[in-house]
Amino acid sequence: MGEAMNRQWLYAKPPVGKIAEDTFQWVETAIPVPRDGEALVRTRMLSLDPANRAWMMGKTYRDALEPGRVMSGFAIGEVVESKAPGLAKGDIVEGDWGWQDYAALPVRQLAKRDTKAPLELLIGPLSVTGLTAYFGLLEVGRPKPGDTVLVSAAAGAVGSMVGQIARLAGCRVVGTAGGQDKCDWLTAELGFDAAVDYKAGAVRRALAAACPDGVDVYFDNTGGPVLEAALSLMNLRGRIVCCGNVSQYDVEKPAPGPMAVPGLVVTKRLRLEGFIVMDFYDRRGEAEARLAKWVADGRIKAIVDVVDGLENAPEALIGLFDGKNRGKRAVRVG
Amino acid sequence: MGEAMNRQWLYAKPPVGKIAEDTFQWVETAIPVPRDGEALVRTRMLSLDPANRAWMMGKTYRDALEPGRVMSGFAIGEVVESKAPGLAKGDIVEGDWGWQDYAALPVRQLAKRDTKAPLELLIGPLSVTGLTAYFGLLEVGRPKPGDTVLVSAAAGAVGSMVGQIARLAGCRVVGTAGGQDKCDWLTAELGFDAAVDYKAGAVRRALAAACPDGVDVYFDNTGGPVLEAALSLMNLRGRIVCCGNVSQYDVEKPAPGPMAVPGLVVTKRLRLEGFIVMDFYDRRGEAEARLAKWVADGRIKAIVDVVDGLENAPEALIGLFDGKNRGKRAVRVG
Repeated sequence: MGEAMNRQWLYAKPPVGKIAEDTFQWVETAIPVPRDGEALVRTRMLSLDPANRAWMMGKTYRDALEPGRVMSGFAIGEVVESKAPGLAKGDIVEGDWGWQDYAALPVRQLAKRDTKAPLELLIGPLSVTGLTAYFGLLEVGRPKPGDTVLVSAAAGAVGSMVGQIARLAGCRVVGTAGGQDKCDWLTAELGFDAAVDYKAGAVRRALAAACPDGVDVYFDNTGGPVLEAALSLMNLRGRIVCCGNVSQYDVEKPAPGPMAVPGLVVTKRLRLEGFIVMDFYDRRGEAEARLAKWVADGRIKAIVDVVDGLENAPEALIGLFDGKNRGKRAVRVG
Repeated sequence: MGEAMNRQWLYAKPPVGKIAEDTFQWVETAIPVPRDGEALVRTRMLSLDPANRAWMMGKTYRDALEPGRVMSGFAIGEVVESKAPGLAKGDIVEGDWGWQDYAALPVRQLAKRDTKAPLELLIGPLSVTGLTAYFGLLEVGRPKPGDTVLVSAAAGAVGSMVGQIARLAGCRVVGTAGGQDKCDWLTAELGFDAAVDYKAGAVRRALAAACPDGVDVYFDNTGGPVLEAALSLMNLRGRIVCCGNVSQYDVEKPAPGPMAVPGLVVTKRLRLEGFIVMDFYDRRGEAEARLAKWVADGRIKAIVDVVDGLENAPEALIGLFDGKNRGKRAVRVG
């Protein structure tokens, strides 16, 4: 540590098609000085999420990213100097200050976290991605014991948690992932009942074989062909949790939508429902406590894939869209 | 009346593209004789519904229609001979015995209706289509006073009821219909706040102008371009009631699905939910009583478009897909 400068990755320009190194620009600037009401935070871990790419596509649940500004992203950091009430040097905080070593932020943009918890858990499994899985599956999907729960991008940060929580809820759990290695890992290590390699072709047929009783809850992280196949396999009154559309984020031209909408939605009385984890933050404490206990008891494996060094953030994000990660991908900064 | 024969329209063969006269075949057979437990019913009114066409496309919430059998369809009839407990000559009943003068049916396939109610109301506004509008809007869409409710095929059987019920619920009501005449009728006669001619082009822009505060509930009878436009205009946590997909029923090759699914479903936290009116039949009595009162009080106009003569049923159904009807289209048989 001890950089004299604040190293930053700027969001340089909107990508055409896939993001690349030149989507970002490295700069070094002065470390900011906190004003009254602000804390100076040193970044410890950066979260890499498919949503980072979606934010480049236009306004979503937040404004589109603006070229020339520091690349946005969820982060965990340590307060190094505080002029903010309620925050002290050494506190561990989370926020969305993005890809840089330091940020001076008002207290309302920071949430204090447990200083004793491992940063690897705070950056995902016990934070955004764990909560996304918890609330999305349980509150939007509402699985019952005996249900078949299908989840796409099952080897990813959210998917790996969804599958394990669904298993705890008494469900039969099927995941999709890219490549047989990941599929074997899902069944051998994470307790999935079955896993389907969506890159191997004939996705619908493979899913039909893996879900002989149909699908009651589909947790959709990907959109695309897996969503189309899942729609055709849904049981009457099935629920589709619309969490992400990662198959369509890092492309030049998004594919058409699923043919089965709205036809099968009507005939099967399906419910498709979108959510954002922040919608449930008033109940965050309850969920964090349960997730922490499940992880501590070994009932859920918190899978984190840490890349070292802020300088490697662009490559690590690019790799996320190439499926290089297992579980939560994060960058250790300081 | 007094036919010596049972006139029937058979479903002759699956249409390629649009249905035509040769989708059906006219035959005359013997009037059936009811067995023990059955009643002989004489058809009085046939309901024509977009769903009739959807049933030709494959299995839906019912098996696909089988060529060579009597064309299916909801009907109102009069018991002319009863060997069924609880049914007597002169009773008015409803059921799904299709396009024919007579049918012998077991009692469980018949539901008794009020003999004093006009058949024009029993065939739609106080039956399937009225209940579809009532339950779909109120139970699936859950509008609040002040919401903007958009409904497609607003001049049709279901849409005309949805708009009027939404108005009673304190909502701002916008409809789409084919042609300026129908749009003028929606605003002048049915109390819609605005109506958009989807055939005039630039649907999204016209809907945006008609819905300056966005759309809270979209009651989708059509799918297709209006669904795509509505998705882009939905407010946060908006609800889309998936009732039908009529724009895609009478075509050779259905169009791709809406691009905005699942992307906008996630970012706007939308709920798309399908339903079938029969799902709510345990509460049918409550809804029928309210609809009947609203119609009797003049608070809702029950619009019925009656075509005379069983022989005209194919042409009347074909006309439904050409938008020739206003309100509920039915065939008076006897």
